[in-house]
Amino acid sequence: MSVDQPGSILCFGEVLLRLSAERGTKLVNAQRFDAHIGGSEANVGALLAQLGHSVQMVTVLARSSLGHQCEAELRRVGIGTSHSVRAEGRQGLYFLEGGGAAGRIIYDRGGSAFAQNANLLDWSALVGHASWFHLSGIDLALGDIAAEAALDAVKTMASAGVAISFDVNHRASLWEGRSKSELARVRDVMALTDYLFASPRDLARTLGCEIAQATQSAFGTFDRLTLIASTQRLLQQQRLSVRIATREQAHETNGASLGCVVDRIGSGDAFAGAVIDGILRGASLEECANFGLAAAISKHGIAGDRWIGTREELESFNPFSPGDVRR
Amino acid sequence: MSVDQPGSILCFGEVLLRLSAERGTKLVNAQRFDAHIGGSEANVGALLAQLGHSVQMVTVLARSSLGHQCEAELRRVGIGTSHSVRAEGRQGLYFLEGGGAAGRIIYDRGGSAFAQNANLLDWSALVGHASWFHLSGIDLALGDIAAEAALDAVKTMASAGVAISFDVNHRASLWEGRSKSELARVRDVMALTDYLFASPRDLARTLGCEIAQATQSAFGTFDRLTLIASTQRLLQQQRLSVRIATREQAHETNGASLGCVVDRIGSGDAFAGAVIDGILRGASLEECANFGLAAAISKHGIAGDRWIGTREELESFNPFSPGDVRR
Amino acid sequence: MSVDQPGSILCFGEVLLRLSAERGTKLVNAQRFDAHIGGSEANVGALLAQLGHSVQMVTVLARSSLGHQCEAELRRVGIGTSHSVRAEGRQGLYFLEGGGAAGRIIYDRGGSAFAQNANLLDWSALVGHASWFHLSGIDLALGDIAAEAALDAVKTMASAGVAISFDVNHRASLWEGRSKSELARVRDVMALTDYLFASPRDLARTLGCEIAQATQSAFGTFDRLTLIASTQRLLQQQRLSVRIATREQAHETNGASLGCVVDRIGSGDAFAGAVIDGILRGASLEECANFGLAAAISKHGIAGDRWIGTREELESFNPFSPGDVRR
Amino acid sequence: MSVDQPGSILCFGEVLLRLSAERGTKLVNAQRFDAHIGGSEANVGALLAQLGHSVQMVTVLARSSLGHQCEAELRRVGIGTSHSVRAEGRQGLYFLEGGGAAGRIIYDRGGSAFAQNANLLDWSALVGHASWFHLSGIDLALGDIAAEAALDAVKTMASAGVAISFDVNHRASLWEGRSKSELARVRDVMALTDYLFASPRDLARTLGCEIAQATQSAFGTFDRLTLIASTQRLLQQQRLSVRIATREQAHETNGASLGCVVDRIGSGDAFAGAVIDGILRGASLEECANFGLAAAISKHGIAGDRWIGTREELESFNPFSPGDVRR
Amino acid sequence: MSVDQPGSILCFGEVLLRLSAERGTKLVNAQRFDAHIGGSEANVGALLAQLGHSVQMVTVLARSSLGHQCEAELRRVGIGTSHSVRAEGRQGLYFLEGGGAAGRIIYDRGGSAFAQNANLLDWSALVGHASWFHLSGIDLALGDIAAEAALDAVKTMASAGVAISFDVNHRASLWEGRSKSELARVRDVMALTDYLFASPRDLARTLGCEIAQATQSAFGTFDRLTLIASTQRLLQQQRLSVRIATREQAHETNGASLGCVVDRIGSGDAFAGAVIDGILRGASLEECANFGLAAAISKHGIAGDRWIGTREELESFNPFSPGDVRR
Amino acid sequence: MSVDQPGSILCFGEVLLRLSAERGTKLVNAQRFDAHIGGSEANVGALLAQLGHSVQMVTVLARSSLGHQCEAELRRVGIGTSHSVRAEGRQGLYFLEGGGAAGRIIYDRGGSAFAQNANLLDWSALVGHASWFHLSGIDLALGDIAAEAALDAVKTMASAGVAISFDVNHRASLWEGRSKSELARVRDVMALTDYLFASPRDLARTLGCEIAQATQSAFGTFDRLTLIASTQRLLQQQRLSVRIATREQAHETNGASLGCVVDRIGSGDAFAGAVIDGILRGASLEECANFGLAAAISKHGIAGDRWIGTREELESFNPFSPGDVRR
Repeated sequence: MSVDQPGSILCFGEVLLRLSAERGTKLVNAQRFDAHIGGSEANVGALLAQLGHSVQMVTVLARSSLGHQCEAELRRVGIGTSHSVRAEGRQGLYFLEGGGAAGRIIYDRGGSAFAQNANLLDWSALVGHASWFHLSGIDLALGDIAAEAALDAVKTMASAGVAISFDVNHRASLWEGRSKSELARVRDVMALTDYLFASPRDLARTLGCEIAQATQSAFGTFDRLTLIASTQRLLQQQRLSVRIATREQAHETNGASLGCVVDRIGSGDAFAGAVIDGILRGASLEECANFGLAAAISKHGIAGDRWIGTREELESFNPFSPGDVRR
Repeated sequence: MSVDQPGSILCFGEVLLRLSAERGTKLVNAQRFDAHIGGSEANVGALLAQLGHSVQMVTVLARSSLGHQCEAELRRVGIGTSHSVRAEGRQGLYFLEGGGAAGRIIYDRGGSAFAQNANLLDWSALVGHASWFHLSGIDLALGDIAAEAALDAVKTMASAGVAISFDVNHRASLWEGRSKSELARVRDVMALTDYLFASPRDLARTLGCEIAQATQSAFGTFDRLTLIASTQRLLQQQRLSVRIATREQAHETNGASLGCVVDRIGSGDAFAGAVIDGILRGASLEECANFGLAAAISKHGIAGDRWIGTREELESFNPFSPGDVRR
Repeated sequence: MSVDQPGSILCFGEVLLRLSAERGTKLVNAQRFDAHIGGSEANVGALLAQLGHSVQMVTVLARSSLGHQCEAELRRVGIGTSHSVRAEGRQGLYFLEGGGAAGRIIYDRGGSAFAQNANLLDWSALVGHASWFHLSGIDLALGDIAAEAALDAVKTMASAGVAISFDVNHRASLWEGRSKSELARVRDVMALTDYLFASPRDLARTLGCEIAQATQSAFGTFDRLTLIASTQRLLQQQRLSVRIATREQAHETNGASLGCVVDRIGSGDAFAGAVIDGILRGASLEECANFGLAAAISKHGIAGDRWIGTREELESFNPFSPGDVRR
Repeated sequence: MSVDQPGSILCFGEVLLRLSAERGTKLVNAQRFDAHIGGSEANVGALLAQLGHSVQMVTVLARSSLGHQCEAELRRVGIGTSHSVRAEGRQGLYFLEGGGAAGRIIYDRGGSAFAQNANLLDWSALVGHASWFHLSGIDLALGDIAAEAALDAVKTMASAGVAISFDVNHRASLWEGRSKSELARVRDVMALTDYLFASPRDLARTLGCEIAQATQSAFGTFDRLTLIASTQRLLQQQRLSVRIATREQAHETNGASLGCVVDRIGSGDAFAGAVIDGILRGASLEECANFGLAAAISKHGIAGDRWIGTREELESFNPFSPGDVRR
Repeated sequence: MSVDQPGSILCFGEVLLRLSAERGTKLVNAQRFDAHIGGSEANVGALLAQLGHSVQMVTVLARSSLGHQCEAELRRVGIGTSHSVRAEGRQGLYFLEGGGAAGRIIYDRGGSAFAQNANLLDWSALVGHASWFHLSGIDLALGDIAAEAALDAVKTMASAGVAISFDVNHRASLWEGRSKSELARVRDVMALTDYLFASPRDLARTLGCEIAQATQSAFGTFDRLTLIASTQRLLQQQRLSVRIATREQAHETNGASLGCVVDRIGSGDAFAGAVIDGILRGASLEECANFGLAAAISKHGIAGDRWIGTREELESFNPFSPGDVRR
Repeated sequence: MSVDQPGSILCFGEVLLRLSAERGTKLVNAQRFDAHIGGSEANVGALLAQLGHSVQMVTVLARSSLGHQCEAELRRVGIGTSHSVRAEGRQGLYFLEGGGAAGRIIYDRGGSAFAQNANLLDWSALVGHASWFHLSGIDLALGDIAAEAALDAVKTMASAGVAISFDVNHRASLWEGRSKSELARVRDVMALTDYLFASPRDLARTLGCEIAQATQSAFGTFDRLTLIASTQRLLQQQRLSVRIATREQAHETNGASLGCVVDRIGSGDAFAGAVIDGILRGASLEECANFGLAAAISKHGIAGDRWIGTREELESFNPFSPGDVRR
């Protein structure tokens, strides 16, 4: 399934087991849970592996049956796991209630094998296998061990000329009570990032500027930065649009209707994965935006955190015309 | 969980076991049913108990496993059952098909322990434990025994100065074939009611007046009446608004979108419960209306007859902005 | 599917909707129910129709979606419903908990359309379509209307020379509190029965004799009686055997192991149906016994009240060697 | 259930077992499938049988448990199966993913008992039992044996004066790679059709004319043609409208909203069935259109390929006001 | 439901949310989990509350939706929760695979609200509400905070003359790596115990004596000890027997067959609860043993950790004759 | 996960999608199917890959979503798929009814991509990657294309000195109507086999000798043969034993009880996989037999065709003591 290339796309982050209550059931009442594998960086990797890229997950899994399940599910979508390690500790979990449009996430990832052992990963050994490195802001919000591993990784990869993509992925509940110096790490990673997934609001929060000037300010502040991409939700109208900018140009799509949402989680990760694919195959800004929008919209119809499908399906999906039954 | 108060909110009515076919399955084809506990008055009590009030269900349960289930589910949400009694007879059932937006209810509650034994309840003993008394028009539509128990209750409570809330809750199929004198009981209860949940159409049907004059006419006719509240469905647009009026003022909310409905049953009960909570904590008319609207709208996303959640969740829910995944 | 014959096998009795809790779940906790169609006489008819006989259900169904479901499920297995009528009232229900070996049934059939309207059936019109008439003792335990309809039916059929089979099917909870004169009806029906399904204990209860003399006494008392058949459960050993006797001879099978039971309900009905099939095709006593045993044993592996399968499957099933996977 | 008439409505076509993945699950991930019976012509028959018509399915079923299931499900909705035959070969399957609004069908019907043995049907014997004959273009797309059987049938029925309805039902994946002479058969059947279900696009494809002239052209080309009916989907707006034309007049309904779709499959078949019912009871063009629209819209809320319900339910369903919970 | 008594039975321990994979599914493959509430001490309390005793759970629950679920499920079976407190931290979880006879448990309870905050419980305030105090060895295996809380509790209760029952409940995986001084706490609690649930092997491990002398040695060592009870599993034969001894006498039941096991978890807790009930109502040693055996055997047929039912059901259950369907 | 070795274990055969009805449901009634991946050779490979061997599946998959699912599930358990090819045609299916102890399989694999395109596999290219080659008799029963591919494969591998294991795996329904020359291919493969999985009955059928002499006769006839292994089922007692023989010695285990069977399918494949593992790590005959028995017995408790677990779990499983809950 994988395309021959000198190295792989390395995705660095924690893999989580998600336990979601049935549609319409609150956690306080839940008697049955569906299990899915998630984790923002693994979701990005899942889309890229299914589209034919060589993808390796760089993570720490618990030495337990739940750790085995995470590894098996990575393999299932074609992600390599030979660069991941095992350690003592829990496999991170999260609980999801609501289903469909709205929802509430309860993280239960404290004391995880990843958060406590991310320093086991040997970046100088891994850099030789990398053609691209992807991480997210969640790596920076899980405590000092993971955050420092992320910074080490980014420095090592950037020095070696590996392209770096970074999705800010702000999660209020994870950042609660974090210190200023911790928040500063987001900025440190941005400084080494080539391809940034961040909303104007994320940028403004990090740079301390106005939202209206955020994109411009980011390109001004960070020399390495090549591209900034984000999705915008217009919740009242239940629509989603995509904006991508480089230093030279910007493109914003129309808003596409979400229809009856099956699962909102992971649509931003599907977007990021599709944009990275566009960049890798040299697509235009507009093509990247449209491909990313297609991935994000079609993800809303797929249960679980990960976009599931083939390149052919994604290429033939028109987000502005959800279309009839194909037969 | 319960707030210290001199008495409890007593909810009087039948508890039903609801058996609902899977979404999209008609009863003629149903091979699997989900079971939920319902009954309009118990639904009101469920919201109030979860919000921290001391609530007691006053009902008659069947001496059977299904009666046990009803009692257990009342306890589960924090409703007290020590004022309920057991008797021979069936536990009332109802079947539900459709799921989501539309639906059809088939009652199977004839010969229930409640309908045949509601006269076992000793109101003069119960009044001492009551700070509030809630009932609905369904109590009046289940035959003479239940209807007379309801009238006795209301008279006893009103004499003792207990606040009375009454939800007309007109159900066409239950009132079919009832005599005029039976219908007159709705009016008799209204005459002793402080807080009335009734649409202008319900009022007009009862008072024999025009819909446009119904609220005014109700305040003119019933001296005790303090407040009238109702929801309006604008089905074509799939929106819901709320109207509350006192003798001095009235407030009507904007219509809020229902989105993809999980379960429409019990949204009126959630509304009534939230308004009663507002009254009890001295909220303004507008606050009561908004809180009631939030309960009604959020109920549409919850499976089963009962609103499920915490006060904190309800207070943070904005019905005009269903919002994204909270994490 | 039906064999050409001058008339049909008429099965007279109530059709019930069964609601069973998931295996291991008590009714007080049940949140999901599986629905199956049952009723002893309909179960007998289901096996016979699937084996190729022309079978007609003679019953009264509720004019409701649940009544429609019962009719549809009868048709599904090939039972004709043109001799059944519709009436107001409830469709009888029963709840089942436990699953597998043990279990508990809660009847909820009071006030059913059948019990209140069985007198609507016009036996003089039906007799012309009958080649065989089957009923059970449950018909006699549902109140005067049903019991008298049963007696009328048996008299009409017997007078016209239609073969009559009767399964005593004693249900303690249904007979509780019945009067002596009601119990006497069992004896009245036995007196007109050709083929009787009754254990020695059932016979002794009815005839007031010792269990050891029961079969002999029955043949002595009832002139029309041609055959008596029953199953014996040896619960400790989880085995089942079959005994059939005529005036001239008797045959008893070895006990066959029940293994891991999926559903015990309806195994006696499957037995009765298979024996009737044996009688109709002129099989020997031993063949009838073995065929009945095969039906009863294989029913334990089938969910729901009814034996499901084809004649070929039943003929190739060896109850003494449950056998491996067939491929 | 069936109305007395000199003959039955014969529906000719393959019955398929549909296996659908759970909502939101792609086939590559599906671990559980729901089974439904489908097939366009059987779906039309299902609606007509439930509305009280005498309907017979004329098909070839596999001599297997899956063939038995298809037959049992036909019987369940009241379709007669005595004119169907059994043969060796597979029972045709199809897999469905997506659920709700969009979806993808994977046919797995190659080598089916129907496709290989449709020539076993003896039309000269069947014509005597027919008051109406319904077929679809799918019959013509399953290979020479089925297509020639369809042509034979239509010729035999037309000669005998039996009314013929034909639903073009174009399926791109089935027609891929078919020869011109095969496509010509659609035209051959149209030439003998009384009541045609075809969109202007279908007509234009067959007649080689402009879409705008298609209806006019069809009436000009085919002398027998009495009526042309079709539905139009306005996907972006999620609405459906209906158009019916005779030589003298035409009627087009407003577009009705689809709301939250449970199952889109079979809505065209429900439409066709309802229009046929209208024709049979002499309804006006407008009544036929509205009844057909009601069937098509309400089908979107019913899981499986077939419309399920009673005449009363369909008559009381207003497609322009999906309505509240009925109780 | 509760019997009038001067105080309640206090059960002290952690409440866990159990997530069990479907029968036959290993955790590495599990895509769906059933949720049940467990925890040895809560299981004992559940049986006692259902049998009519006033039971209070003394625990620390997480301030989260999962903590709410645990509290709601305690209330559902009639256990009071007003003596429990809320704290930050996780709600303890455990995962279960296998189903039926065998199985494997993966604890995920590190860092739980209970283990970190058990010192919040104020035993001097609680002792006034206690008529009986139950705890288990698991309390001693969850770290110093919980273990010291347990020792404090036992000392306070014993001083006040409250009866103390203690179930050793040895769990190898929880005791792994614990120090000698930690193990010594088991002995410290035993020294203050009146009613001890411990196998000869448990006693021998704690006292450092031979298994054959263990019971005698325990009575010799611990002055307060009144009764020692345990179950014995004979796995090969799938049977269970019960042994209870006082200083004066001992009784051992025959082994009862387990049949097809639905859920083995919690059978020891059901046993303990039933024996405590026997003691409280002054039953003989033999009655206690038989009642305990009935609870343990019937628990094997009930899904989840807790025995579910009524006193009447337990009293009528004969463990040596699992019995037929009751109707 | 894979151990470093010069080559991989190649497993050659068709991968099937299994659709199994719920426990206790016959296919004629099945409304829900569980999907599992099967195929004898893939099952053997699944166990070996989970035990840490490098395993490659050599098969032909359909170019469809079902083909994708098969590949994804192979990857999930760690089987490499880079030596498999894609082709037009169906993915082979089989339907399973019964569940638990007994069961019935309906193959629906005619016209599969594998059966029609097995000749696409290039054995001379594959032999370089092989350290072991495993196939089964099913490969020989799927028509000439697959059978000749199997013979080619065996010849190529044997010439290159690759160890060959062959499981006769006789399936009556697949061999029905096959010619003598087709049956002779079984013998042809045996002649090149090193490690043979065949019962004495299989050997006798192939060699035309008495069952008692079969093992001896096989060693006499086939020079290359090193080892013959098989399981024996004693169905009445629900026990399984294992026999392995070399030219020098033989070992037969005691019979181990199967208990409550979850899924009988694939137990022979688990046995074969475990024996191959034993051979590869140089275990004694007795160790191989016991390990194989453990795999076969524990497979009976695992849903689906494949044994699921880790080497550690298999090594610690004692088939003669199914054991208690491990915690």
